[in-house]
Amino acid sequence: MDIFCFKNTKKIKSFCFLCFLLFFASLSFADEGMWLFSNPPKEKIREKYGFEITPEFLDLLQKSSIRFGNGGSGSFVSSQGLVMTNHHVAVSSLQKLSKPGKDLVRNGFYAPTPQEELKCEGLELIQLMEIQDVSEEIHADLNAGSPENADQIRKEKINQIEQEGLNRMLEKGFARSSLKCEVVSFYEGGLYHLYIYRRFADVRLVFAPEESVGFFGGDPDNFEFPRYVLDVSFFRIYDKGAPYHPEKYLRWSSRGAKEGELVFVSGHPGRTNRFNTMDHLFFQRDEYYPYLMSSIRRKEVLLQTYAQRGKEEARQVASELFSIQNRRKNREGILLGLQTPDLIRQKFLEEQNLMNALIEKNLVVPDKYDPWKSIKDALEVYKKLMIPYDMLERGSAFDSELFKIARSIVRIAEESEKSDEKRLMEYRDSVLSALKENILNPGPIYPEAECIKLTSSLGSFLESQQIPPFWKKILKSQSPRQKAIELLSQTKLTDPAERKRLLDLDLASLKQENDPMIQLALTVDPTAREIRSLYEKKVQDPLRKAYTAIAQARFQLKDANYYPDATFTLRLSYGKIAGYIEDNGKTIPPWTFMSGAFQHAEKHDFIPPYDLAESWIKNKKDLDLSTPLNIISTNDIIGGNSGSPLINTKGEIVGLIFDGNIQSLVANFIYTDKQARALSVHSSAIQEGLQKIYRTDRILNELGK
Amino acid sequence: MDIFCFKNTKKIKSFCFLCFLLFFASLSFADEGMWLFSNPPKEKIREKYGFEITPEFLDLLQKSSIRFGNGGSGSFVSSQGLVMTNHHVAVSSLQKLSKPGKDLVRNGFYAPTPQEELKCEGLELIQLMEIQDVSEEIHADLNAGSPENADQIRKEKINQIEQEGLNRMLEKGFARSSLKCEVVSFYEGGLYHLYIYRRFADVRLVFAPEESVGFFGGDPDNFEFPRYVLDVSFFRIYDKGAPYHPEKYLRWSSRGAKEGELVFVSGHPGRTNRFNTMDHLFFQRDEYYPYLMSSIRRKEVLLQTYAQRGKEEARQVASELFSIQNRRKNREGILLGLQTPDLIRQKFLEEQNLMNALIEKNLVVPDKYDPWKSIKDALEVYKKLMIPYDMLERGSAFDSELFKIARSIVRIAEESEKSDEKRLMEYRDSVLSALKENILNPGPIYPEAECIKLTSSLGSFLESQQIPPFWKKILKSQSPRQKAIELLSQTKLTDPAERKRLLDLDLASLKQENDPMIQLALTVDPTAREIRSLYEKKVQDPLRKAYTAIAQARFQLKDANYYPDATFTLRLSYGKIAGYIEDNGKTIPPWTFMSGAFQHAEKHDFIPPYDLAESWIKNKKDLDLSTPLNIISTNDIIGGNSGSPLINTKGEIVGLIFDGNIQSLVANFIYTDKQARALSVHSSAIQEGLQKIYRTDRILNELGK
Repeated sequence: MDIFCFKNTKKIKSFCFLCFLLFFASLSFADEGMWLFSNPPKEKIREKYGFEITPEFLDLLQKSSIRFGNGGSGSFVSSQGLVMTNHHVAVSSLQKLSKPGKDLVRNGFYAPTPQEELKCEGLELIQLMEIQDVSEEIHADLNAGSPENADQIRKEKINQIEQEGLNRMLEKGFARSSLKCEVVSFYEGGLYHLYIYRRFADVRLVFAPEESVGFFGGDPDNFEFPRYVLDVSFFRIYDKGAPYHPEKYLRWSSRGAKEGELVFVSGHPGRTNRFNTMDHLFFQRDEYYPYLMSSIRRKEVLLQTYAQRGKEEARQVASELFSIQNRRKNREGILLGLQTPDLIRQKFLEEQNLMNALIEKNLVVPDKYDPWKSIKDALEVYKKLMIPYDMLERGSAFDSELFKIARSIVRIAEESEKSDEKRLMEYRDSVLSALKENILNPGPIYPEAECIKLTSSLGSFLESQQIPPFWKKILKSQSPRQKAIELLSQTKLTDPAERKRLLDLDLASLKQENDPMIQLALTVDPTAREIRSLYEKKVQDPLRKAYTAIAQARFQLKDANYYPDATFTLRLSYGKIAGYIEDNGKTIPPWTFMSGAFQHAEKHDFIPPYDLAESWIKNKKDLDLSTPLNIISTNDIIGGNSGSPLINTKGEIVGLIFDGNIQSLVANFIYTDKQARALSVHSSAIQEGLQKIYRTDRILNELGK
Repeated sequence: MDIFCFKNTKKIKSFCFLCFLLFFASLSFADEGMWLFSNPPKEKIREKYGFEITPEFLDLLQKSSIRFGNGGSGSFVSSQGLVMTNHHVAVSSLQKLSKPGKDLVRNGFYAPTPQEELKCEGLELIQLMEIQDVSEEIHADLNAGSPENADQIRKEKINQIEQEGLNRMLEKGFARSSLKCEVVSFYEGGLYHLYIYRRFADVRLVFAPEESVGFFGGDPDNFEFPRYVLDVSFFRIYDKGAPYHPEKYLRWSSRGAKEGELVFVSGHPGRTNRFNTMDHLFFQRDEYYPYLMSSIRRKEVLLQTYAQRGKEEARQVASELFSIQNRRKNREGILLGLQTPDLIRQKFLEEQNLMNALIEKNLVVPDKYDPWKSIKDALEVYKKLMIPYDMLERGSAFDSELFKIARSIVRIAEESEKSDEKRLMEYRDSVLSALKENILNPGPIYPEAECIKLTSSLGSFLESQQIPPFWKKILKSQSPRQKAIELLSQTKLTDPAERKRLLDLDLASLKQENDPMIQLALTVDPTAREIRSLYEKKVQDPLRKAYTAIAQARFQLKDANYYPDATFTLRLSYGKIAGYIEDNGKTIPPWTFMSGAFQHAEKHDFIPPYDLAESWIKNKKDLDLSTPLNIISTNDIIGGNSGSPLINTKGEIVGLIFDGNIQSLVANFIYTDKQARALSVHSSAIQEGLQKIYRTDRILNELGK
């Protein structure tokens, strides 16, 4: 059959019906879902794996789970507040703790005594203590009020609930600073939960391996399997100056998990769009991602070429180049998934089933309001707006730190004249001082790198042939390079004092300034705002409305297979340890061994990023090279899950999630267990490394080893 | 003023008129032109430089100039048949002469005795002995016959003239094998010349430096200035086993040329499109080059990523990656030029002047036939055809050596059933055996590299959203990767015997074969041919007709400023030694020194391609480091000019052309002397290197040093 006719849904209703049973049969076997702890897929797990999830089991996982303020996950692994996460989650802390001559990222760290543990300033961890369903209260207030005031009513009610939760905890004796109360919405407002977190601000670094171990294989190996990393680090939480004793923590399993074994992941997946309609997926596949990839490749080649000019140039753009390569690989993985008809077919069948069910139960009445059509229409508008919006409002046509500063200065002046609630989101009082701080103290700005980026981005704007009168206005009779040079050589925004002075001006005064970058930002702004406003009214709002309608209707189906999109809140995922078969027919076994790390380094002549650390080479003779190193499973995870524990049915740690393979990247939109796999460091490898390479007796004792 | 309104020519007629004089003033100072030796710009040179070109001067330059069969230029530099060209022109010969353990590309070569000079099999050089204007004869025959038979009449007359030329030379005692007679057409048939070449097949290698000297700075430095290369090599022509004594050769100037000095280049520029209309230039700027750049970047990132997998992978794609990076830089330079309003303005004024002059003299009668409109209309069609044509007919959707083989096999079968003159050009009898040889003995084919390229190209086809029903037919319900793997794992075209067997089949039999790559080629072919035929009829033919009309009309103007587009034939260019001012205001002096090579290598830590050869390091103490190394001039050159001598007014060699800077790349379309420069190796540096680094006394003696 032909997947591409799916766009015309009418023709294939009969075919679709035939697939119906087949589909449900297949679905019931898939380990899909990022489940709320309040609604775990008990039956599915019982049916497929014969395991009964008990309240005690859930409680252990929930209370042992940790969320990192900078976007990762972790878990308590000892009674002494020891927290395990990935090396790559620890990197920003390692960077902050480094000094000239003491490079913790490169060389790793171990505190042989408690006194030597290093406090991580600014690092905040939270742990979910309580979940309370507050949907009824909020819905009651919403139903009692008028629909126009819904936003206001919801906001007030949420404030009230959060305050009550806080008071309750204060009464129990918790300190204000150790609490975080938050009402979170799921299913687009179908469900509201109050989450009460314990908050930890005294976090200290205990152990991290060398970067060449924690990120062995670097960018080329990222999102790949087989893999050979020991992507682990340990922190300790302190409370009032002493190690914190958590209510629950996860025990260690030295033996790990065997093939086919049921395993759980408890962590904080970031964002998914699992419920995108078919039209939306086609839009992503045919419009958005191809455009995005083309922009990314352009920038990658640009930075790569610049880096080749010399050592200093390479240093200047190293992290930007790394991040763009990482993005390219990630987005390419997503696009490859969207271009896989099997996956699209699966989504199509899901959508057909959902449509039929909702219409049958009168939860959606297309003649009154058809959310699918509404999404399709909004995307038709977006198709036309996408490039101008990216170029002018997101600023892709002006890829320069100094332009970003100029725009912020201009917008701060304009937005500050409005009352807080009427401002653009990113200029509200709550974030304004941080934004100003950023303008006064931005990262280093390299004039030549600025110049090539601004030249290329002005060129891309010109080549896009979007709003020609507008780029005529901007470029006048100059080439992109001439314009970039003029802007960068004449602007005074490189001077912090000048930025400070301009920040204090109102819009009328700014217009009198002759700084060309400020003038450019002023020229761009009205059109950019117009496009943004069009985008919000004709794309964002209709999409939100339509997805809310679908989500809420779907929630009323009480469908046991319906889990909410990821939102950085704590979720449970289940799956099994399993290899897979590559498209080329090659069988990929579910694990690698420590011996593989050495072979992999040798294959690449130990050239970075394959320069396996000296500590491994030196201690190779003592290692049991047959220890499993990395392990893969069918768990449904995504970015944000980094550092999550992989847990067996006894509640023991058998691994540490650190990545997904390329085939898993489409998890943004679609779960698949055919080839997509979650990647973990095997618990035995962590133990073997701590014992025989890093000799961290203190940690091993705490893990009971 | 605003360059972008140029698309609407009516609005600015009045403005244009104002610029008229200004334009002619500027034009008369520009060193533009790739001039025929039969029509050198004597007056322009006399006026601007006060130098009188004599017939003797022209004769010396013409007879000393050499064309390399593989596309470069060179010159006689001694009475003993010594020929100088670039190292990069010699590279293919160096590769062929290399053996395991004897890498002439890497290590260079010097023959200290005549006996040690190495014969270069397959290398053919030619030298233009006589030029004869045969326009009248051809035009007379054309005028006497009917227009429908024009092609046939022209072909026959040309054959006859070439045969007569040949006979004349045979009578003079030349051997048949030492001759090449060719009628070449200029100004789209306005002018015909008979070129009689002396042909040399016994060419021996005398000297080449190390690659790290000849191509110092590699790809990052290519098309850049300042530069520091000794991109030189020497060959010797033999005749009947002894060194050939040329009628003329160029003397050596040790002192080179001073700033502002008049210099000539005599060489073989490849292809230009100097007479593209404004609409055509806009098409190139807005459609063709942006699309091309996006395809190139996609492939560059793909190959780069593949090369990062490991040493072996890097080796497999090294030359393809190098060539794509080179193309990217070159095409980017062209696009940057097209995006420079100054240049576009210059072309616009030229076009306006030409239009006015032709219409005024009734050489073009727009009401009867408007070639500009015809070009515009053809490009409107091309705009729609461009991507499908590239994808299906050029085969960009199927980037695989095995697909290319399959397509050739399929087309050979189909074309062989036709009479020779009805076949597609590339399947005529004259080239068929070479094509078959290529199919039987292609270069190495690497399965995994094939797979990533085919996957990516199928993906790009899908993403282009061109002819959706067609890619449905090709991909069926597979992803690009699944399809690529299926094709590559099931085809038997990797087996030479199988290719041989298939080559012998007729079309009907091929259709019975189940090789999936053959089947794919069969599926693609009808649509590809249809697009090609549309392209030829609706784009190529109308463009050719319109450009012929313009060129012939223009030729009748007897405009002294009108030189023909480059065609790999011998041309004269003049200019002066001159630095320039970068867009950023930086002054670039017209030369670099040998000291700079060492500094440049140090700046890059001697890491390849900055690993300046040991021979330089070792002999540094003996060198006069203040010797000028590279030198730049305003000469109008392009690819094909590589290896051309740079000659002073005494007819002495002052340098050796090896490259153009980025700003010169737009020379495809537009000459500019604001920043565009021709790059030469300075004659003193060649001499200093031969004396103190390579100690090639024999060569120095011949050069009279």
